[in-house]
Amino acid sequence: MNSFTPTPRTRVVRHAERGVYDREQIYSILDEAFICHVGFVADGQPYVIPTAYGRADDRLYLHGAAANRMLRSLAQGVDICATVTLIDGFVMARAAFRQSFNYRSVVILGKARLITDPAEKTAALRCLTNHVVAGRWEEVRPPDEKELAATSVLELPITEASAKVRSGPPLDAEADWPRPVWAGVVPVELATGEPVPDTHLLPGIPDLNLDRFGR
Amino acid sequence: MNSFTPTPRTRVVRHAERGVYDREQIYSILDEAFICHVGFVADGQPYVIPTAYGRADDRLYLHGAAANRMLRSLAQGVDICATVTLIDGFVMARAAFRQSFNYRSVVILGKARLITDPAEKTAALRCLTNHVVAGRWEEVRPPDEKELAATSVLELPITEASAKVRSGPPLDAEADWPRPVWAGVVPVELATGEPVPDTHLLPGIPDLNLDRFGR
Repeated sequence: MNSFTPTPRTRVVRHAERGVYDREQIYSILDEAFICHVGFVADGQPYVIPTAYGRADDRLYLHGAAANRMLRSLAQGVDICATVTLIDGFVMARAAFRQSFNYRSVVILGKARLITDPAEKTAALRCLTNHVVAGRWEEVRPPDEKELAATSVLELPITEASAKVRSGPPLDAEADWPRPVWAGVVPVELATGEPVPDTHLLPGIPDLNLDRFGR
Repeated sequence: MNSFTPTPRTRVVRHAERGVYDREQIYSILDEAFICHVGFVADGQPYVIPTAYGRADDRLYLHGAAANRMLRSLAQGVDICATVTLIDGFVMARAAFRQSFNYRSVVILGKARLITDPAEKTAALRCLTNHVVAGRWEEVRPPDEKELAATSVLELPITEASAKVRSGPPLDAEADWPRPVWAGVVPVELATGEPVPDTHLLPGIPDLNLDRFGR
């Protein structure tokens, strides 16, 4: 199935033309971003917590300390929403009403499941680690038993999902074009700076190739 | 009052040393970021939606189309959570368990109120517009009556809030130091690219000063 079926909960209503249900496009957004914002309800109060994630096929993995309040809530199988957002540009219009952002965001609704199988848990942690930098799992020390026990890993099936995407220039009405102000798009992206080596780095270790963060 | 009083809902429990309640520091995070993720519950399902915002004193402003599902939900005075996250770096450790991000995030809990007073609404829209680029409101066409009527603006009082901040190097155990892999921090920030002028830009308009996006 190459597209998600929009549900009343995931169908994009405002600016319906920005709604994206194509699986490949949604996965490319998930693979490009670094963190998601997870929404859940505890004691009647909604919380939104930023957290790392990884994706393998149609599964999103989340993790955290086993004692973590969010993880414990999510592991109970409550309804959650995981949202991933990339800001692509500032849309500078000539009218305040038309100021906007270019962005790509994905919303996933569902229930998470605590992963208990050790092999599955290790594979999910590998996915989470390599999401940030491809191949990182293969060069660092894997978790020992104590570290594994202290970590909870959750799987959120990606079954009810949609994206919303805005791109392109400001949408000023023609009557506003003569206004003497700069209008257009200022692209933005997350950029890496100069790496700061750890104090205890072994001598002779080559620099990290920053292309490994590229998407 | 220079600090927020942590409540059972906003006190940082995991990595309590990363909890920040200082008002000035929390506001500086809010003033630096560009979007927030708003969590609310509709028909029993939590949703997390990325949206623009502005801050004036101890008030956060949100806005959107008056017909927008989220705005209509929020205007009913439901419990919401507004979360703002800045990613500052990738923390590359020698152990998978110690991989991390440097980040600054703010969580605000409360109920939003629909702004109906016209002057207050205009001031809030000015705050929202100038949050992205200082002075932008003063150079663009302000909303006309029809545009104002099509826009809902909400105020979320910043009364129950906290931040969580991680900074600094990886926290590998000394036993892992000899591992022959690069470790340290790769700083990241949102960077602007080459502006793309609108097709209908008037001739002779000077380029936008990108420093105006700087924080």
